[in-house]
Amino acid sequence: MVIEKIKESRFTPDVFDITTFGTAFADHMLLSWYKDGKWSEPIIKPYGKLDFTPAISVGHYGQGIFEGMKAYKGETGDVYLFRPDKNLERLNKSAERLDMPQIPEEIFMDGLKALIDLDRQWVPSTYGMSLYLRPVMFATEEAITARSSNEYLFAILTAVAPNYYNKPLSVKVADRYSRAANGGVGFAKAAGNYAGSFYPTHLAREEGYDQVIWTDDATHTFIEEAGTMNVFVRINDKLITAPTSERILDGVTRRSMIELAKAEGIDVEVRKVTVEEMHTAHKNGQLKEVFGVGTAVVVNNYVAVGYASERLELEDLPETESYGKILKKKLVDLQMGISEDPFGWRLKVEENLVEA
Amino acid sequence: MVIEKIKESRFTPDVFDITTFGTAFADHMLLSWYKDGKWSEPIIKPYGKLDFTPAISVGHYGQGIFEGMKAYKGETGDVYLFRPDKNLERLNKSAERLDMPQIPEEIFMDGLKALIDLDRQWVPSTYGMSLYLRPVMFATEEAITARSSNEYLFAILTAVAPNYYNKPLSVKVADRYSRAANGGVGFAKAAGNYAGSFYPTHLAREEGYDQVIWTDDATHTFIEEAGTMNVFVRINDKLITAPTSERILDGVTRRSMIELAKAEGIDVEVRKVTVEEMHTAHKNGQLKEVFGVGTAVVVNNYVAVGYASERLELEDLPETESYGKILKKKLVDLQMGISEDPFGWRLKVEENLVEA
Repeated sequence: MVIEKIKESRFTPDVFDITTFGTAFADHMLLSWYKDGKWSEPIIKPYGKLDFTPAISVGHYGQGIFEGMKAYKGETGDVYLFRPDKNLERLNKSAERLDMPQIPEEIFMDGLKALIDLDRQWVPSTYGMSLYLRPVMFATEEAITARSSNEYLFAILTAVAPNYYNKPLSVKVADRYSRAANGGVGFAKAAGNYAGSFYPTHLAREEGYDQVIWTDDATHTFIEEAGTMNVFVRINDKLITAPTSERILDGVTRRSMIELAKAEGIDVEVRKVTVEEMHTAHKNGQLKEVFGVGTAVVVNNYVAVGYASERLELEDLPETESYGKILKKKLVDLQMGISEDPFGWRLKVEENLVEA
Repeated sequence: MVIEKIKESRFTPDVFDITTFGTAFADHMLLSWYKDGKWSEPIIKPYGKLDFTPAISVGHYGQGIFEGMKAYKGETGDVYLFRPDKNLERLNKSAERLDMPQIPEEIFMDGLKALIDLDRQWVPSTYGMSLYLRPVMFATEEAITARSSNEYLFAILTAVAPNYYNKPLSVKVADRYSRAANGGVGFAKAAGNYAGSFYPTHLAREEGYDQVIWTDDATHTFIEEAGTMNVFVRINDKLITAPTSERILDGVTRRSMIELAKAEGIDVEVRKVTVEEMHTAHKNGQLKEVFGVGTAVVVNNYVAVGYASERLELEDLPETESYGKILKKKLVDLQMGISEDPFGWRLKVEENLVEA
């Protein structure tokens, strides 16, 4: 690994005051280039510009995948990652489906740790805050012909992460547009999945909603996911979430929430859940909460769910009663090193991995 | 429009000898930047590098759309475009679905004409050859947060276009993977549609096929399109092609072929066609030909169609009998200014649009 340190850090304590997510980048980035069938030695260097022509393949054919992760700083000043092995695993699953090369574990894990160690002052210690980590791979070959690129960039970027949403969301259940096809790329964290979701989200906003809950493209019967969040529905005291599938992202936060819920003794079911079931439960006063979970958002308890022309309002349960809020606290406490980690999910980033 | 001419042209007559599509770029490119809700004055400048960071939005969220067009040089030396209004129309339909800004007609059309006029020596006059034109728009904002970009680049690139495929193709009918969802972005020329198709195509290659014919994602019953081609099936003397839909690209070549077929007195039906119908016709000796059409490929008569574990071999009909070959000649003759243009499809690029 080559390290090219920034001459003068751009860090000041007020970087943590930023309110927009993913626009204030830390000092360094990690880069590795894929060409002639192999990855270059990774380099950590100051975040900044690279040379690309407008023929850059990803701009035309969309071979781009990414991961969302966070680094947390505990009260002792230690910096932690959360289940990074799951992100590497998923990145490589995405890569396979998008016909892109696999990222070797040493580039991903050693690169990630070295980068965070170098920029550890950028990790905030305020409860619930973190440094967002963005491993990304995209096609860089200068060729406008519809085939897999022969060249890729793998990068890890880091950006200060305030709350992704600064309020509880209201969400619209998709009844016209879709996010994923059977036999498509819905399970992958693929660039095109996001691009396709923005216009329907735009339309949902015009109806007064913040996001869309996606349903199956054939019948719009089953609740799938919310684009940047997996969805949990609580009916009475049963917590239900859809099984992952080739249309649904296998979220690390989703998995962790299921395990935390089980450990808490919450009755959690992984099974298909229909829009109609949610609607009926609401009518009968049994729909206690609906929430989205994901690395960027953590947990967001929805205030309303739009279903056809109806707006199902949801009660704002107190911290002690809401499964979403209870599990969020469990998760953040574990991530920040406040609570024990019986699952072995937390990974401490050792200091001085990088020579000065 | 700002024109910054190349100091010394890179053109030499042997650029036309290239055998790979989309990798040899002509002297200039057109660029316009979208920011703060408006497009910048377009600039034509030497093709080359721009500055982007790895946080460039399209690499993460896939907002990228494009068009494929060609410039043709006739025997008189005149240079023609083919139905460019249709490409502008479709680009803006793609833009809407991908939540991207509309491209004004003057940037697209005036830019295109000026660019081609400037690089007209790059348009080959050999029959069947052309200069490939690639209008493209992608998201350039430096922000890693899952929302529509606030900044975009619109570019027109041009590259020497040898035959896209140097042989008739064999194609595999999709029975596991899919290209498009109902309510998705299949009808748009969106970057992510291509990214999702490469891995299934890779698998088809391992089975000895060149490309995939996509079917509906729910049942794999209906023939849709072939990724870079719309598909025509000829059963006896009837030519059938699927209607466009929200899952199928509205190809300019497809439209033109339908109109040319009608003008030729060929019995052409635009209706759903099932894989089973094609299979049965083959068994009964009634499947005369299957071909793909598109701007890049023009017309490609398939030599074989893979259906489940069967390989349906197709006869190589002579030039005078194959509808694909007859219509291809009609189309190319019209595009190159050899035949009359009763449809008003050809647009001559005037000379000296750009001051030297």
